[in-house]
Amino acid sequence: MNIRDIAKIAGVGVSTVSRVINNHPDVKEQTRERVLEIIKENNYIPNNSARNLKKNNTKNIGVLIKGVFNPFFSEMLDLISKRISKAGYSMILEHHDYLSDNEIKNLISIVKEKRLQGVICLGGNFENISNEDFDDIEVPVVLTSINHKYGKEFSKFSSVTIDNVHSAYLATEHLIKCGCRSIAIMLGDEKDLGIGFLREEGFLKALKDNNIKFNKEFRLLGRFDYRGAYNELKNILDKNADIDGIFAISDIMAVGCSKAIKDSNLEIGKDISIVGFDGMDISEFYSPTITTIKQPKLEMAELSVGLLLDLLEGKTENKHIILETELIERESSNYKKFKKSYGK
Amino acid sequence: MNIRDIAKIAGVGVSTVSRVINNHPDVKEQTRERVLEIIKENNYIPNNSARNLKKNNTKNIGVLIKGVFNPFFSEMLDLISKRISKAGYSMILEHHDYLSDNEIKNLISIVKEKRLQGVICLGGNFENISNEDFDDIEVPVVLTSINHKYGKEFSKFSSVTIDNVHSAYLATEHLIKCGCRSIAIMLGDEKDLGIGFLREEGFLKALKDNNIKFNKEFRLLGRFDYRGAYNELKNILDKNADIDGIFAISDIMAVGCSKAIKDSNLEIGKDISIVGFDGMDISEFYSPTITTIKQPKLEMAELSVGLLLDLLEGKTENKHIILETELIERESSNYKKFKKSYGK
Repeated sequence: MNIRDIAKIAGVGVSTVSRVINNHPDVKEQTRERVLEIIKENNYIPNNSARNLKKNNTKNIGVLIKGVFNPFFSEMLDLISKRISKAGYSMILEHHDYLSDNEIKNLISIVKEKRLQGVICLGGNFENISNEDFDDIEVPVVLTSINHKYGKEFSKFSSVTIDNVHSAYLATEHLIKCGCRSIAIMLGDEKDLGIGFLREEGFLKALKDNNIKFNKEFRLLGRFDYRGAYNELKNILDKNADIDGIFAISDIMAVGCSKAIKDSNLEIGKDISIVGFDGMDISEFYSPTITTIKQPKLEMAELSVGLLLDLLEGKTENKHIILETELIERESSNYKKFKKSYGK
Repeated sequence: MNIRDIAKIAGVGVSTVSRVINNHPDVKEQTRERVLEIIKENNYIPNNSARNLKKNNTKNIGVLIKGVFNPFFSEMLDLISKRISKAGYSMILEHHDYLSDNEIKNLISIVKEKRLQGVICLGGNFENISNEDFDDIEVPVVLTSINHKYGKEFSKFSSVTIDNVHSAYLATEHLIKCGCRSIAIMLGDEKDLGIGFLREEGFLKALKDNNIKFNKEFRLLGRFDYRGAYNELKNILDKNADIDGIFAISDIMAVGCSKAIKDSNLEIGKDISIVGFDGMDISEFYSPTITTIKQPKLEMAELSVGLLLDLLEGKTENKHIILETELIERESSNYKKFKKSYGK
């Protein structure tokens, strides 16, 4: 069913149907009504494509996701995608991996090639960027969940982030308060220049402030997935490593660690305490429940897309928002407190 | 940095720079080299946008995802997104929810509005569709993980799916073999006209074939998430419901069920056995491990995007592919078999 079919059925010319579709005044009321009725009866959907092209008003918002599959970003994406759709934009999703060395260059290239009206970057290495880097980007950019806290002097882009160093410090301090003295860190990837380094910084600072020495053999790399974390920890536990606490920089890896501890016949929260990061639902539904640093995921998504839409409409200047995180204490740490409720 | 800046630095006209960028032969070799060097030195990225617009070759592939956030589709999406990018297309992602009543109309509308060259639909109610429904869609369409097995007479679209009825039958039969007689089903949503109904059909058939009566109070709705499944099952267990087996139509809901069973001081696999569906990683890393029907997720994603790209290049006709599923037996069912490895 195309515009010619509609014209034929209505017994009018194609241009008349076109005028009806485009709300052109120059059509008899009777004709307009008949054409609209036929359009409706035949479920005909006007082809906006040609019109859009002519007007050159493709409205594309790009979402650039750093790294491989990341459930934390997936959950944010759902909300972002819906808000973008609702605002009448299309969402163009691009993944890029850890090895690209110049995020800004990637960004410029994608904005130009995909003709984007605005961009949200989820994750990425945006340390040491400057206003000048954005000289070639004429559209609003919101950097979300990245590895830096920017201040208002960075007026050419916006950011929505958390304080990763401080949050990791809190997580580690909690393990120390639970009595852990031989603490491992489960990082993602050696080449991850993003949030991993900041969380490691906070971790090391907490150890130092508490006069606890870090055993470099306990710097583990779990590839940000269940299996990677499981294998890495199981491997070192099989060698009878003396670990009594683990800070995993993602909840997914904390789950992998938990399974490795169980499979080593050790007790989570008693023999080895675990703190994760993100506040994913699984940390609450795993057994035992997993202590975590909760990021305000939905607020972060909501603010990022809201800010971008406001920037697009000229309703706001660029902003830098730092959101609070929260330590959620659960069964995987502080055994004594949870002993009653935890298992048998 | 724009084309005029490059021209200025190189001491040539803008049109010369343009000819260099577009590999036009009409430039002196020496000039070409100098311009390219300056482009490189300045990290200048040519603006393809105008060129693309002129050529009208936006290459967009749409991915339409049915329903709210679904980790099963998220994991497929990662692979699909990468393959689409690699093939030189942009991926336009659209979510639509359960309540839209006419999937085909949605599809036509999105293809036209977003100027898509091809579409992959992940999930959705595509029962009882016909070749004629695709008369208005001039681009290739692959329906993936939908609620119907189509045959080759449906030549106007492609599909990649599993046999949901049969797979659910196997899951239920396994529970019966494990000794369960009072079996509940954890479905997603009352209004889900997609795969849920087919899995329920297989479930009921297995019960009937084994002369087991289904207690309609054990038809549970878990909203496809941890919390929904947890609340629904906890609620009925609190009333001392006599359930000894649960078929959850997603692994995420199987996890929610597992937590509810533990929090009711019952033992998973002994008091109540569980079988999930999907073969998500969490089913392997949960504790106890969860028996599941494994879908060939990555193969499904790979085949869907490969098929669409082949269709776009005219390398293949429409196809209908039905993939095998596999029952993975784990600790959450068949307690005796796993007793040794399971817990203490």
